Amino acid sequence: MEYFPAPLEKLVEQFARLPGIGGKSAQRLAFHVLELPEEQAREFADAILAARRSVTLCPVCQNLTEGGLCPICASEKRDGGVICVVADTRDVIAIERSREFNGRYHVLHGVLSPMNHVGPDDLHIRSLLDRVSAGGVREVIMATNPDTEGEATALYLSRLLKPFGVKVTRLAYGIPVGSHLEFADDATLMRALHGRQEL
Amino acid sequence: MEYFPAPLEKLVEQFARLPGIGGKSAQRLAFHVLELPEEQAREFADAILAARRSVTLCPVCQNLTEGGLCPICASEKRDGGVICVVADTRDVIAIERSREFNGRYHVLHGVLSPMNHVGPDDLHIRSLLDRVSAGGVREVIMATNPDTEGEATALYLSRLLKPFGVKVTRLAYGIPVGSHLEFADDATLMRALHGRQEL
Repeated sequence: MEYFPAPLEKLVEQFARLPGIGGKSAQRLAFHVLELPEEQAREFADAILAARRSVTLCPVCQNLTEGGLCPICASEKRDGGVICVVADTRDVIAIERSREFNGRYHVLHGVLSPMNHVGPDDLHIRSLLDRVSAGGVREVIMATNPDTEGEATALYLSRLLKPFGVKVTRLAYGIPVGSHLEFADDATLMRALHGRQEL
Repeated sequence: MEYFPAPLEKLVEQFARLPGIGGKSAQRLAFHVLELPEEQAREFADAILAARRSVTLCPVCQNLTEGGLCPICASEKRDGGVICVVADTRDVIAIERSREFNGRYHVLHGVLSPMNHVGPDDLHIRSLLDRVSAGGVREVIMATNPDTEGEATALYLSRLLKPFGVKVTRLAYGIPVGSHLEFADDATLMRALHGRQEL
């Protein structure tokens, strides 16, 4: 005896495939959809299709865009001489939110990870090298995550980039703003001491 | 400066409207959809529309069905003489899972709740009375939740039903199977003692 009508069962399955959504949550979400006005259900379905179809990667920086160049690559106000290399499009958003950076980006779509069989050819490295070799780039900022894989990727790229005579930098390590010293881990404290600056 | 392409922003909003999905989760889900093969994104969108369109309420018991009578009302193996009254379609599933009940259901789609302005007219009570008055029903089991509103609803319905000369019962209260006595609350223990049965 099946408990749900087939279309509901199918919808539960679809929700359960999403990351971080377990069986119970999938049921709750599916029941919620049943109770939506038809128009809202249609809007939801359309949003899925529209996002999947019309969001593409910027041919220059591989950031998300709606066809053509992304707004950052298209903007003449941004400094094309500085490229900030990030692992993921979400990292672009995080850095944009700080309003501190006025250069352009390059999204690798991953980091080197031998454990997960991700090698240099699986990342958008070739197009980064092309951008730098085309000239006009003064600095490349490595903004991969401060974990083992992010570090390794930054190091690997910096070795590839230096022959082009470009300055390669890494985000500063240190105590996060607003945190408490007593909760900082040893590695972070050590880095913060090493990187201390004169006031 | 907007951070997401518009279609992605829209999809994030749609996910954020779902119950229990916060802003960060909505972002994670939307990015996941972007990475789906187009066919899977279409399947997901279709599942939403199909569920919303083709899942209806059974005209007899108000349980979910795919058009027409629900499988339980349609089955001749189920005993139409016993009606189990539940608040929600999910409660039908819970009881079906126990494989203990062979009667039919009646789904109220809510409980009486003056605080939330839910009165008798907002529930599927009229159709329950019609079923009972049509004859052939020997017993109505009140399987609303054992909380204040569920209790009040069960009591209210039992008063409406008794004039029809039908037996009205309530699910037994007591210690949940597999639990520990020391963790049982006072009210449950009291009910368990009151309802004690000879071995």
